[in-house]
Amino acid sequence: MFKKVLIANRGEIARRVIRTCKRLTIHTVAIYSEADAESLHVKDADEAYCVGKPPVAQSYLNIDRILEIAKESGAEAIHPGYGLLSENANFAKRCTEAGLVFIGPSADVIASMGSKLEARKTMKAAGVPIVEGVEAPVKDVEEATDIAERLGYPIMLKASAGGGGIGMQLVENAEELAKAFEGNQKRAQSFFGDGTMYMERFIANPHHVEVQIMADHQGNVVPLFERECSIQRRNQKVVEEAPSPFISQETREKMLEASVKAAKHIGYVNAGTIEYLVDEDQNFYFLEMNTRLQVEHPVTEEITKLDLVEEQLKIAAKQPLSFTRESITKEGHAIEVRIYAENPSTFFPSPGTITALVLPTGEGIRHECGVEAGSVVTPFYDPMISKLVVWGETRTLACERLIQALQTYNIEGIQTNIPMLLKTVTHEQFLQGNTTTKFVEQFYLSQLTETK
Amino acid sequence: MFKKVLIANRGEIARRVIRTCKRLTIHTVAIYSEADAESLHVKDADEAYCVGKPPVAQSYLNIDRILEIAKESGAEAIHPGYGLLSENANFAKRCTEAGLVFIGPSADVIASMGSKLEARKTMKAAGVPIVEGVEAPVKDVEEATDIAERLGYPIMLKASAGGGGIGMQLVENAEELAKAFEGNQKRAQSFFGDGTMYMERFIANPHHVEVQIMADHQGNVVPLFERECSIQRRNQKVVEEAPSPFISQETREKMLEASVKAAKHIGYVNAGTIEYLVDEDQNFYFLEMNTRLQVEHPVTEEITKLDLVEEQLKIAAKQPLSFTRESITKEGHAIEVRIYAENPSTFFPSPGTITALVLPTGEGIRHECGVEAGSVVTPFYDPMISKLVVWGETRTLACERLIQALQTYNIEGIQTNIPMLLKTVTHEQFLQGNTTTKFVEQFYLSQLTETK
Repeated sequence: MFKKVLIANRGEIARRVIRTCKRLTIHTVAIYSEADAESLHVKDADEAYCVGKPPVAQSYLNIDRILEIAKESGAEAIHPGYGLLSENANFAKRCTEAGLVFIGPSADVIASMGSKLEARKTMKAAGVPIVEGVEAPVKDVEEATDIAERLGYPIMLKASAGGGGIGMQLVENAEELAKAFEGNQKRAQSFFGDGTMYMERFIANPHHVEVQIMADHQGNVVPLFERECSIQRRNQKVVEEAPSPFISQETREKMLEASVKAAKHIGYVNAGTIEYLVDEDQNFYFLEMNTRLQVEHPVTEEITKLDLVEEQLKIAAKQPLSFTRESITKEGHAIEVRIYAENPSTFFPSPGTITALVLPTGEGIRHECGVEAGSVVTPFYDPMISKLVVWGETRTLACERLIQALQTYNIEGIQTNIPMLLKTVTHEQFLQGNTTTKFVEQFYLSQLTETK
Repeated sequence: MFKKVLIANRGEIARRVIRTCKRLTIHTVAIYSEADAESLHVKDADEAYCVGKPPVAQSYLNIDRILEIAKESGAEAIHPGYGLLSENANFAKRCTEAGLVFIGPSADVIASMGSKLEARKTMKAAGVPIVEGVEAPVKDVEEATDIAERLGYPIMLKASAGGGGIGMQLVENAEELAKAFEGNQKRAQSFFGDGTMYMERFIANPHHVEVQIMADHQGNVVPLFERECSIQRRNQKVVEEAPSPFISQETREKMLEASVKAAKHIGYVNAGTIEYLVDEDQNFYFLEMNTRLQVEHPVTEEITKLDLVEEQLKIAAKQPLSFTRESITKEGHAIEVRIYAENPSTFFPSPGTITALVLPTGEGIRHECGVEAGSVVTPFYDPMISKLVVWGETRTLACERLIQALQTYNIEGIQTNIPMLLKTVTHEQFLQGNTTTKFVEQFYLSQLTETK
């Protein structure tokens, strides 16, 4: 096992990784921007180095400086967390070139899943169901119109390099398509330096269900069940749970099987997540693959009782998986909500100083928290400050514990999305497990309008 | 189920009971002394009533006032928590007379287990192993000396009404016995109003292992495995775990069986704990029965995934147990440590204002906490302010998580026993599971002396 690991991240996920490293007696190296000098992840780590000034481009994305710190500190491996450089193929490559172990899959695999069009092609070849559409880049409006006629409207126009909803648009007819095509192509070009566009049939009211897989260097791939992450706002997940309350056992088996096939097909190594859209008839379609640890990994930990960070470290150290598909069982139900420092109605970030923080405690409650009383939430980085995770023998018990914990969650000095979370998780549709990706739009935003 | 329950306690256990009540949509009534007006348990409850001035005699032990509050608020049942009035047979009787449900066993059962001599006789009749000794009160020094000759020295002299080590003394020979007898008799008379003394053979280096049982009004008794609580200071437990790392599966089966027999013999109802001393050869002997929820109940919850407070409420509402001995399984290992506001070397209470409190977070960590930043720890009540509970698939993992959590536990403004807990749980003997009741004396106090 490694003796020293650098954690190229901040906030709760840096603390999460540091905790498991320390438990395994691995020395930890934190990096921090000048704005984060007093952060908890800095205090937790054995060593900490300043990586630059905010915002991210000058600090947590500064590959040269990060590699310099790794060399200076004598770290053998780098854990990228999620976000930031975690899916940057160039960073993975640079780590390897510098003789460091990148804790994740190879640069090639990251790159191939980073291009949505390439990923779509690859998954089709692996036999994973994909939404009907085209695997080839769409050249221009004329070709787009022809393809749309064949697939039938509505159509989802997508940028191959896209992410976070950018370069993606739903079009209902030829007129909308003509307008949308060039606009999104330009936007994708300017955001990602790649204007490649493709098209898919539109799936109405889908569920977002994703499969966690773990794969070692010895060729073993084990799926760790699924997570339902349909409740999103601004294309970001806010409530995630495991198992999915929507899919049948038959669908589950098929999805796990498809995910193992996909991972084996691309020679995947380490923790990865294959995201699917699931329609009302339980047909599932490949959406994208995330080649890193997910924000919502704790719900999988809660139902399997595994430490996914420990497994990532062991895999990176070339150890074979200590479990098999047959030996892994799940128990109970886990739900995670993301606490954001934001205005609960507008979803705009709400920076400031946290003047008081009293976390709910008790049976079945877990926190992954990046802040304490006195912490300053700056406008420079992601406004997610904490995650609340609950476990219960049944989904009903987990919901009851979640509602109660949110009701007693006390954070002062900044605005948070806790009121929005409470409205969501006390909603009849949520309690019944009816959570499509339209949830926030359909139920929460309409409630907001009603109460105004 | 009850519509409204009064919680006749304070601190973390009041919060614990309130939480489960609220989850079950039971209205909660808190009581508080003037010193506790700003306490978290008061904020948590739906209603709160002042019960008097500190100390306990004028507040939390004021039976008349508590029954008055119950009547005034319309509560149907009273949960006594632990300590305070929880094992007061008169309180249980008064509740029943006032038409209230006392959440616990009957007054008669409480009384019979409150007298150690009577409990000893009863358990012997039930076929539970007891330490060799006498079931009859020992009249005077002459009789004591005769009995001691027969049993063989060393001898444990005990007061029947005793508790917390008061009225109890180890004697090595006839001379010591002569001195000790009258002193302890007098002390027991003045503390408990009852100078009845009895004698037992002394067990060297015992383990303290206790069995949790749950019994309903329908006559079902289910044992929820055991807890090892050998690590004590001043006769108070500080570290508790489940399952016991010491007893064999064969001993476990025997102890669970004996406990079920004992509970059935006395017609026990609700949650109860039968405490045993276990000697080096795994012989076990009845010590006493606690007729209430224990401080350390969370470790049982963690390995069985049951909510013991929920079970208590259901039993009190005359519902049958929802589980059987066959359906209950245990998983993994749980350890609890009690955080006391005290000087870690002298064990003297350390009252004051908590200026900062940052609880460790993450996988496998649970808190039962009665305080927040800004809370005042007064000298009037028990100095236990919080419990840290960890769970792990293995005892090793639980120990690692516990050590790490204690290392990052940040509480400022008062002194706590966290340094003492850290010394204890990082001790080689603890990590190996060698935890007799002599642990603190043998390992911790000697370490303290060495480091001075």
